[in-house]
Amino acid sequence: MKNVLLTITYDGTDFCGWQKQPDQRSAQGEVERVLSIVCAQPIQINGTSRTDAGVHAYGQRASFAAEFSIPTEKIPMVANGIFASAASEKSRKASGEIAILAAEEVPSEFHARFDAIGKKYIYKILNSQRPDPFRRNYCYQVGRRLDVDAMRQAASHVIGTKDFKCFQAAGGKVLESTVRTIHSVRLGSLENNEVKFEVIGDGFLYNMVRIIVGTLVDVGLGRKNPDALPEIIKSKDRQLAGHTAPPQGLYLAEVFYGNEALRNAAEAMKE
Amino acid sequence: MKNVLLTITYDGTDFCGWQKQPDQRSAQGEVERVLSIVCAQPIQINGTSRTDAGVHAYGQRASFAAEFSIPTEKIPMVANGIFASAASEKSRKASGEIAILAAEEVPSEFHARFDAIGKKYIYKILNSQRPDPFRRNYCYQVGRRLDVDAMRQAASHVIGTKDFKCFQAAGGKVLESTVRTIHSVRLGSLENNEVKFEVIGDGFLYNMVRIIVGTLVDVGLGRKNPDALPEIIKSKDRQLAGHTAPPQGLYLAEVFYGNEALRNAAEAMKE
Repeated sequence: MKNVLLTITYDGTDFCGWQKQPDQRSAQGEVERVLSIVCAQPIQINGTSRTDAGVHAYGQRASFAAEFSIPTEKIPMVANGIFASAASEKSRKASGEIAILAAEEVPSEFHARFDAIGKKYIYKILNSQRPDPFRRNYCYQVGRRLDVDAMRQAASHVIGTKDFKCFQAAGGKVLESTVRTIHSVRLGSLENNEVKFEVIGDGFLYNMVRIIVGTLVDVGLGRKNPDALPEIIKSKDRQLAGHTAPPQGLYLAEVFYGNEALRNAAEAMKE
Repeated sequence: MKNVLLTITYDGTDFCGWQKQPDQRSAQGEVERVLSIVCAQPIQINGTSRTDAGVHAYGQRASFAAEFSIPTEKIPMVANGIFASAASEKSRKASGEIAILAAEEVPSEFHARFDAIGKKYIYKILNSQRPDPFRRNYCYQVGRRLDVDAMRQAASHVIGTKDFKCFQAAGGKVLESTVRTIHSVRLGSLENNEVKFEVIGDGFLYNMVRIIVGTLVDVGLGRKNPDALPEIIKSKDRQLAGHTAPPQGLYLAEVFYGNEALRNAAEAMKE
């Protein structure tokens, strides 16, 4: 029995999200469908992060255990060949909305979700009045000019180990603790009308990144003071935080399994 | 009666093309639907270029004549508001796959297609083995490394006034003449795994840009000699030219109505 860890990228636009749901197209469902062909048996995978509908991934992880004959390192090539030929005949779209970037054998007790010690998300904001059809599914468009410096100041307040209940969407499952550690954040400069927000943490509450970004946008538009963030966090009150930024700007960028990789990534963001 | 010239950008992924077709979503159909609301009467437009399914536009042009009360310069803002709110409820996609970038009043005899004296197309090639779900609808992915210098040398041979019958797809309507003038071409360097081809001409045969690009890719892969291009063109034989590159890499970039604008754009590409 091999235990395999996959690295997966996908454009989430046309998925109901990562997780399988009846009668809907999910990223997990598509990966399982293709792996079942590649491994010649029904395959079920455990993904690290249940990304929502419209949310993208540069580096989702998932693991599965099975006995199969194809060499593990050939899985990406063979699977991507199937993904690339799987274009729906009803659509003019190019195929290949998912690709497996890597497959590696891991110890039998390894689990893609439970063994993850941190994740990095990226959120892209298009700050332009002029509509851009080519970025509509990949950015959050904000028409009014954002004060990026104020947003950066506000973002610095989310670093640390805190109770982030104020950034948790209603409707998520009730968690024992809403305390999380944010290791590092970075808000880039406006480039090609785009502002990129990056965040690394040990875990994230439901919609947490999108609510943080919505709050930062409120700051960038002058609706909130950047130094109100500590108060908002202390309040644990979702009503005091900002709006929930839309899913299409959000990317699961990386999942960390080792302390060193996590530390290096967090350090790299401080440069 | 006002005669109005529009500048339109669209992501062609989900359209059957520019031109209206029964029971299908077209860019023309969407623009007419929204303008009919904005102008409070049925509007029909004349587009400059009948882009194919999957082909994109940065600067399609179209004109229409009507009497309407909204100030012409407000058309883009109002129309884009409707485009942006028109997301299908069946889809998770962000709305706004079309936007009107400009609307200007022109003399009554002006016609967006018949008065165009030239066009610029851009074609994007993703030269990478690694699949990229986010560019699949916006580039032609070629896995093997391209010899961009050889392609550039080949591209230089298409400049001039020539019979380009070899670059005309079968199935296009029979034309009186297949002579066209290509004013300028440019093939950029590989950047972020992308190679950009730009071409300005007085007119283009059916699938001409895509067949030129397919021929250049054949050159880049070593299947054709860059200096075979003059022979291929002279032959007037479609079989001797290369394959037809797929639609999703192609963008109608600009339409020219004045000699000066055309000359400036062609000169700018030589820099």
